[in-house]
Amino acid sequence: MASKTPVGFIGLGNMGNPMAKNLVKHGYPVIAYDVFPEACKEFQDLGAQVTESPADVAEKADRIITMLPSSPNVIEVYTGANGILKKVKKGSLLIDSSTIDPAVSKELAKAVEKMGAVFMDAPVSGGVGAARAANLTFMVGGVEQEFDAAKELLTCMGSNIVYCGEVGTGQAAKICNNMLLAISMIGTAETMNLGIRLGLDPKVLAKILNISSGRCWSSDTYNPVPGVMEGVPSANNYQGGFGTTLMAKDLGLAQISATNTKTPVPLGSQAHQIYRMMCAKGYALKDFSAVFQFLREEETF
Amino acid sequence: MASKTPVGFIGLGNMGNPMAKNLVKHGYPVIAYDVFPEACKEFQDLGAQVTESPADVAEKADRIITMLPSSPNVIEVYTGANGILKKVKKGSLLIDSSTIDPAVSKELAKAVEKMGAVFMDAPVSGGVGAARAANLTFMVGGVEQEFDAAKELLTCMGSNIVYCGEVGTGQAAKICNNMLLAISMIGTAETMNLGIRLGLDPKVLAKILNISSGRCWSSDTYNPVPGVMEGVPSANNYQGGFGTTLMAKDLGLAQISATNTKTPVPLGSQAHQIYRMMCAKGYALKDFSAVFQFLREEETF
Amino acid sequence: MASKTPVGFIGLGNMGNPMAKNLVKHGYPVIAYDVFPEACKEFQDLGAQVTESPADVAEKADRIITMLPSSPNVIEVYTGANGILKKVKKGSLLIDSSTIDPAVSKELAKAVEKMGAVFMDAPVSGGVGAARAANLTFMVGGVEQEFDAAKELLTCMGSNIVYCGEVGTGQAAKICNNMLLAISMIGTAETMNLGIRLGLDPKVLAKILNISSGRCWSSDTYNPVPGVMEGVPSANNYQGGFGTTLMAKDLGLAQISATNTKTPVPLGSQAHQIYRMMCAKGYALKDFSAVFQFLREEETF
Amino acid sequence: MASKTPVGFIGLGNMGNPMAKNLVKHGYPVIAYDVFPEACKEFQDLGAQVTESPADVAEKADRIITMLPSSPNVIEVYTGANGILKKVKKGSLLIDSSTIDPAVSKELAKAVEKMGAVFMDAPVSGGVGAARAANLTFMVGGVEQEFDAAKELLTCMGSNIVYCGEVGTGQAAKICNNMLLAISMIGTAETMNLGIRLGLDPKVLAKILNISSGRCWSSDTYNPVPGVMEGVPSANNYQGGFGTTLMAKDLGLAQISATNTKTPVPLGSQAHQIYRMMCAKGYALKDFSAVFQFLREEETF
Repeated sequence: MASKTPVGFIGLGNMGNPMAKNLVKHGYPVIAYDVFPEACKEFQDLGAQVTESPADVAEKADRIITMLPSSPNVIEVYTGANGILKKVKKGSLLIDSSTIDPAVSKELAKAVEKMGAVFMDAPVSGGVGAARAANLTFMVGGVEQEFDAAKELLTCMGSNIVYCGEVGTGQAAKICNNMLLAISMIGTAETMNLGIRLGLDPKVLAKILNISSGRCWSSDTYNPVPGVMEGVPSANNYQGGFGTTLMAKDLGLAQISATNTKTPVPLGSQAHQIYRMMCAKGYALKDFSAVFQFLREEETF
Repeated sequence: MASKTPVGFIGLGNMGNPMAKNLVKHGYPVIAYDVFPEACKEFQDLGAQVTESPADVAEKADRIITMLPSSPNVIEVYTGANGILKKVKKGSLLIDSSTIDPAVSKELAKAVEKMGAVFMDAPVSGGVGAARAANLTFMVGGVEQEFDAAKELLTCMGSNIVYCGEVGTGQAAKICNNMLLAISMIGTAETMNLGIRLGLDPKVLAKILNISSGRCWSSDTYNPVPGVMEGVPSANNYQGGFGTTLMAKDLGLAQISATNTKTPVPLGSQAHQIYRMMCAKGYALKDFSAVFQFLREEETF
Repeated sequence: MASKTPVGFIGLGNMGNPMAKNLVKHGYPVIAYDVFPEACKEFQDLGAQVTESPADVAEKADRIITMLPSSPNVIEVYTGANGILKKVKKGSLLIDSSTIDPAVSKELAKAVEKMGAVFMDAPVSGGVGAARAANLTFMVGGVEQEFDAAKELLTCMGSNIVYCGEVGTGQAAKICNNMLLAISMIGTAETMNLGIRLGLDPKVLAKILNISSGRCWSSDTYNPVPGVMEGVPSANNYQGGFGTTLMAKDLGLAQISATNTKTPVPLGSQAHQIYRMMCAKGYALKDFSAVFQFLREEETF
Repeated sequence: MASKTPVGFIGLGNMGNPMAKNLVKHGYPVIAYDVFPEACKEFQDLGAQVTESPADVAEKADRIITMLPSSPNVIEVYTGANGILKKVKKGSLLIDSSTIDPAVSKELAKAVEKMGAVFMDAPVSGGVGAARAANLTFMVGGVEQEFDAAKELLTCMGSNIVYCGEVGTGQAAKICNNMLLAISMIGTAETMNLGIRLGLDPKVLAKILNISSGRCWSSDTYNPVPGVMEGVPSANNYQGGFGTTLMAKDLGLAQISATNTKTPVPLGSQAHQIYRMMCAKGYALKDFSAVFQFLREEETF
């Protein structure tokens, strides 16, 4: 195990923390950095080397994973005054697992390439639980010859590593999936609500949809109506799961990509607006299936 | 076989024709009526008794199936000057397989009940092919005790007979399913289009969606992008399948039901508008998955 | 004054009450009916004759105005067991000022015509204040030759009597106007909100819009942003004005008319959904300009 | 006149050409640059000095106006290898009349300020005709003390110079106005279409809207229905006016601003999608009021 070469990890938040721990578990010496020093303490105790800046990480490791909240953070970590690019070594492999605008991934890839290194985007699906269980799905974009090298690391943290195509397509796949997910979740919520209003038992309606052409993951695996399924957020007052504010963020990325490529996304765009309105009405931290609750009429006056 | 009691069948169009034939095949003496006399000729040759009016059918058969294009036709066939209700016998079983507003089904049920007969709504899913192959799904609403009697006839024409609840819930289930189907089809179309614009191979994207939370019937069974799947309308220039104008009609029913019950259906409503715009732009007779083609940019100028 | 022939008035609610009083003021002997007897008491004191049913009104007056909440009420008052049509006299003029589906107006007109009488639809714009001040606008549909006869009565209650065309076009004009009003109100609300977020002073933005192509009644006469104008509901916590639930009702009528005529109304349809969601979220009784408040972000968590 | 100090002008396209000519007419020595040399020839003949790059312009003039198609062009002209910032003089006044993302304007303003110069955003409303007639409206954002200096130049090209607030608010005002314009235009188109379907004469309906609360610039000044008004694009097969593709571009800017500021814009977002779909269906170069034609049903099959 001691013979493994170090891996840099930048961004030790809710998701980055368990991901980096899984690298440690697999015997990789981890070179850690987070903008909040307290996020690193735990890793010091685990034997990781904690550094002062992304540039320091780049000096000490030639494989680096970044897991950050949004585009500006990623840009800062790469191109800032003490950013990775200040000290990145030739031949380094830089993997960004943040969910950001694919256009930003492409720009970073160009800057990294100029330094003689390789950039891949590898956003994840699956939440904190999947991160802990090393059960994430990684959608990977970048040069195909480097995919195996990336996969070696990503398999420590995920169970499903999918090659999507050139740089940026990992992000594209992620935001496409989440846009369709948002659409079908809202669709399921309004359909179930309408059916209930028309006299259908929600369990009966879910059963019919799930053997018919209306079937989707939101209806058969993550039904938003309380009482229809066990073990999903709708069974637990929409606690846990995937927060409405995070879904709104991903829909914002989809919208920006669609606008920039002049792609009509009439329902994706409306889904974005609905999740934004929900954030404005107190649903930001509830699971995104709470759209059922948002749409459900309570016209009591 | 000769001992079977006759069954009335009103409405021998694209769907009614093969459905009634399947009853004949199962040995039921069919009492036929259609507003277009030529639609009946074929049945005369098959030994069916052709009548002059719905009332005549009701006089000669105490089980009647209706399969008509829309609410006004059903209302006319039941309550018109020569309608079923003029001569319906006490204890008759009247099954309406048309897709109509569930509020109309409920009103007809009341009128039928006053005559001492029983009304059930039993709209179908599956197209002409499924009708020929006796492979339709029937969604049945009405008094539960009568479900077995209805099922006896419906199993001659379909492979899946689902009891949905009180009168009107068959229609409700049908329009709910189709509303969610329309939403997820448009969602799939715009998502696939966006992914392609962002550099993803459509087959790769479809594969990723289908193992992820964006998965739906429209992505995994009826993908709207040419080249992704075989044997679906998108592989055949959107010929065949389920016409855009029919989807627009069902979405209109969903919209009316939602309006009357004050149920918000933001995406269902938008899906309705998109299929209406498609009808206005020459897509009326194409399969409803042609929304991919409708959204695909051709900004050539 | 005593020589004026009596006028029937059915429906003495919030709107009907001041309207009927204005007829009394102009010296018309009023024959009154309301389904709630207490609504009639006040009119008894004013010298009006209170009757037991719409049929009684029709027996005693050959000009009748109806002002009722929705289509089913109007149908009942006309065609019910004790409805107007039971005793309507030949040559009577029946004016319906309710806001209902224009298709219902057309059907009633046919039934009235069969009895040798005349039906006109004459919905109003303007609220309770305008009703009191005899300042309503009436949009009138029906045979043009009868317009003057209708106008004689309507001018007692309104200041603007507009002839729109054949029966049903009064309703059509009303719901068309309100649909466009809802769209431009929501548009104004989201535009003002976006401008404020981008650093514009709301008064400056309103001023710019009002001299530019974005100008509309909602921006220049009824601005939804608190502090921009005086004397509008937004200046008074959205009290008074035109309630969200009433706007949702009118948008429902627009939607049903659009669905039945296969007319695409993408924004009208979305406006309907937004007002429905607002009703579901506690805004039912606030003025419809409260959509600004509904959209305004309060992402405090 | 000869004593006037020179003014730089970068971007001599459809709009920039007549704007720069108006500066020449007012006696300003113009220092011209365009990425297409042929666009400059005409100005050479008019006595303007044609330069090789934006940097050259900055060397020779301390007041510069830029009029470019989109954000990337503006960024290149300012920050590119031969951009304005390479040689901008302290105290220079740089006015950008392009329509771009206000966030980009703010970033440029910061970069310009670092060089000791002043940046103002001043996008225009009004098309090529207004540019020729020096009849544009300028919406100006930037330090208030500099507004008079900017106004001196802008009044040569426009008749209405509005101060909006800090840097970026000129852009904000422009895209807010155009978003509301797009919404009310589509709203007017669908309302007029619905009214016609319901039997109203379009001229009568327009008249009613224009005296009622549905009134807006699109209904009373630029009605999209052929035959309702003279002298507007709808009277001329939607030639001229403001192109659908330009409206789609501005709605894209509005959408990006809304996404970045987490502002819900449900109708603005839908309007964007509709104009995108129109671009995909051959309407890119027609006036944006052609949405009436786009929505109008032609269900001929």
